[in-house]
Amino acid sequence: MRRFDSTSNDFHAELTALLAFETSQDPQVDLRVAAILADVKQRGDAAVIDYTNQFDGTAAQSMADLELSQEELKAAFERLPQEQAAALQAAAARVRSFHEKQKMASWSYEDEDGTLLGQQVTALDRVGIYVPGGKATYPSSVLMNAIPAHVAGVQEIIMVVPTPRGERNDMVLGAAYVAGVSRAFTIGGAQAVGALAFGTQTVPQVDKITGPGNAYVAAAKRAVFGIVGIDMVAGPSEILVIADGTTPADWVAMDLFSQAEHDEIAQSILLCTNAAYLAEVEASIAKLLPNQPRKDIISASLANRGALILVKDLAQACEISNYIAPEHLELSVADPDALLPKIRHAGAIFMGQFTSESLGDYCAGPNHVLPTARSARFSSPLGVYDFQKRSSIIKVSAAGAQKLGKIASVLAHGEGLTAHANAAELRFKA
Amino acid sequence: MRRFDSTSNDFHAELTALLAFETSQDPQVDLRVAAILADVKQRGDAAVIDYTNQFDGTAAQSMADLELSQEELKAAFERLPQEQAAALQAAAARVRSFHEKQKMASWSYEDEDGTLLGQQVTALDRVGIYVPGGKATYPSSVLMNAIPAHVAGVQEIIMVVPTPRGERNDMVLGAAYVAGVSRAFTIGGAQAVGALAFGTQTVPQVDKITGPGNAYVAAAKRAVFGIVGIDMVAGPSEILVIADGTTPADWVAMDLFSQAEHDEIAQSILLCTNAAYLAEVEASIAKLLPNQPRKDIISASLANRGALILVKDLAQACEISNYIAPEHLELSVADPDALLPKIRHAGAIFMGQFTSESLGDYCAGPNHVLPTARSARFSSPLGVYDFQKRSSIIKVSAAGAQKLGKIASVLAHGEGLTAHANAAELRFKA
Repeated sequence: MRRFDSTSNDFHAELTALLAFETSQDPQVDLRVAAILADVKQRGDAAVIDYTNQFDGTAAQSMADLELSQEELKAAFERLPQEQAAALQAAAARVRSFHEKQKMASWSYEDEDGTLLGQQVTALDRVGIYVPGGKATYPSSVLMNAIPAHVAGVQEIIMVVPTPRGERNDMVLGAAYVAGVSRAFTIGGAQAVGALAFGTQTVPQVDKITGPGNAYVAAAKRAVFGIVGIDMVAGPSEILVIADGTTPADWVAMDLFSQAEHDEIAQSILLCTNAAYLAEVEASIAKLLPNQPRKDIISASLANRGALILVKDLAQACEISNYIAPEHLELSVADPDALLPKIRHAGAIFMGQFTSESLGDYCAGPNHVLPTARSARFSSPLGVYDFQKRSSIIKVSAAGAQKLGKIASVLAHGEGLTAHANAAELRFKA
Repeated sequence: MRRFDSTSNDFHAELTALLAFETSQDPQVDLRVAAILADVKQRGDAAVIDYTNQFDGTAAQSMADLELSQEELKAAFERLPQEQAAALQAAAARVRSFHEKQKMASWSYEDEDGTLLGQQVTALDRVGIYVPGGKATYPSSVLMNAIPAHVAGVQEIIMVVPTPRGERNDMVLGAAYVAGVSRAFTIGGAQAVGALAFGTQTVPQVDKITGPGNAYVAAAKRAVFGIVGIDMVAGPSEILVIADGTTPADWVAMDLFSQAEHDEIAQSILLCTNAAYLAEVEASIAKLLPNQPRKDIISASLANRGALILVKDLAQACEISNYIAPEHLELSVADPDALLPKIRHAGAIFMGQFTSESLGDYCAGPNHVLPTARSARFSSPLGVYDFQKRSSIIKVSAAGAQKLGKIASVLAHGEGLTAHANAAELRFKA
């Protein structure tokens, strides 16, 4: 694992190189995706069935073969070992309870002229949730996407999850049952995104699509953005740990692993004020790694994109963290409250030695869908607010029309928009 | 202007055809923009100066020639006729006062185990505002983009505004002064977007870019999305008026004009329960049109994309409106309060006969940057919330780590993520 010293002259250049990640958009993928989307738009169900049979090795005859009933979701939940069923329900309850606090409410007020101004908040009607199938199956992602939509008041939540060779995952389907998914289709890829964005004879058109997927799914989401809303296009996952040496080194090493085990291109960085502690964590890494089932992924990730960085003090660590704007930030220090006000940009902040990132991934309550690749500078975790929207409310009184009309008239004439000015003037001459 | 009857069998197909709009992305524009962006990323100031001289017919030698000082903004404001200066200030005060109410605050709570959960709200550090130059100069857009950023607490607001052949617009620069713009550059096009997104020797890198522009600007914003945040990619402007026949027909005609005068592809639609009133509005249109300076644009827009639609009742009008999800919705009826709860999707709702859309465009208070092309189904007006973001806060207590750790461990093992499970287990075995 690389070691950097923040007092080195090259430090900023080294840090920039460490963070650099090219999200190469492959034009071949874009072209293939555009063709699939156009076909789904034109042929609807028939195209979805064809691509699903082709890519997922299934033999569906009709969309009915690709839809899961509520009974099937419930049965999957009931097949789960009791321990898993209970854990899913406990996690869902905590996630729901946190997200309830994010719900936005409408508001309005009257100004001195009796003009009413406000904001009406409404839920999206119908959303689509993309859940990856195959190798990586993440029931926790089902909860994290569906529960905020449900809390927002979305009436219909459509889940799509590919089932390569017909393999269904009970934990994913059980999570859909727990989270209140309305309908579920065993479709994936660009064809699933197209079905949700345009609607088919069977799949209803949604208003927004959220959830992670492979390069084809990401390209398809980017292509349909505008026709429907989408969540962020996600980059590789990252963790930044700020440590003062008070957390057991094994704990911090395992937190770095739990990011690194996602992917060879995941990024785990540790900032510490204490060189001896960095050496201790490095020793913990060497000791703990051999027992990890995903040790090959972890060691590739730590070697390629990990770093142990010695910093002058915790204030400097916070500055570096604000530059990185990490997806996950652990303040693994004795007094995390002292650092919190210094943190301007981070997806989620895990405070104190007991708060491992993995608790936040599953069940603390906040969402685990977080801004990556420095985008926490300008964006937020997935939340209830992503499934609600606002309409401005304006109700001008007769007195208000006199006063506002004069201002609008001057400005509209200044912009050369005479009809705008006249529309205001008709009301105050009245 | 076309007339439709909502009871006709073809109505839904007619409506869909009326709303259809292809936002054709021109691959030639994308390629040209990609080359400009790459050049700005590599050569910085030098590239910005070259493109500006080439496209805007200027003769800048250095970036100093392309930057406006605070003194120049102030002087522009002071050169304005007193009436315009006062109108800008009055509009800014109302816009600021409305937007203050949108400001989000941080919150947190402790659960029964002493675990702290919450959301920390922070402002973006630095944003860029694109203001079109040349033919269409909209000082009101400067207010509508800069004031929400200012209210959010953004420390640095960078305005870019091209000045073809060196022509500066005092009202635009004066609006920048009133709105509290920090720095202003007389650059535009893809080169300005690139300068803001990547930063140059002189132009600092921003975290988000908002504001409208031509096809090159839109393509450049789409291309840099992810490196920085962007606002919505805007389509043609639209108004939907729901009328019950109680508003003077001239007023409604002028409201339809004030949308149509923006652009030949702008869309003005009137829904009414009363056929005689539709004929009255049509007569008003014929009477008022000849006196409009922008009558050619208005009549092209009304002919191409306008419609007068007879509906069964106001409930049906609201249903049609929810399908359209209009940018601007006027409830030009005697009792707009009765309709408001039925409206699920609209950018801004103008209630009652005194509320012309133009009052909202300039000075009522709410933002005039609104979701177009049915995107009010899933998005909101530009607001303070677009310049703030949230970080989740999690501080697990020792007791919380016992309880949450067990849940996380079960779910992580279920997903095959052993390091995630181990990180939780280390804390509850402790």
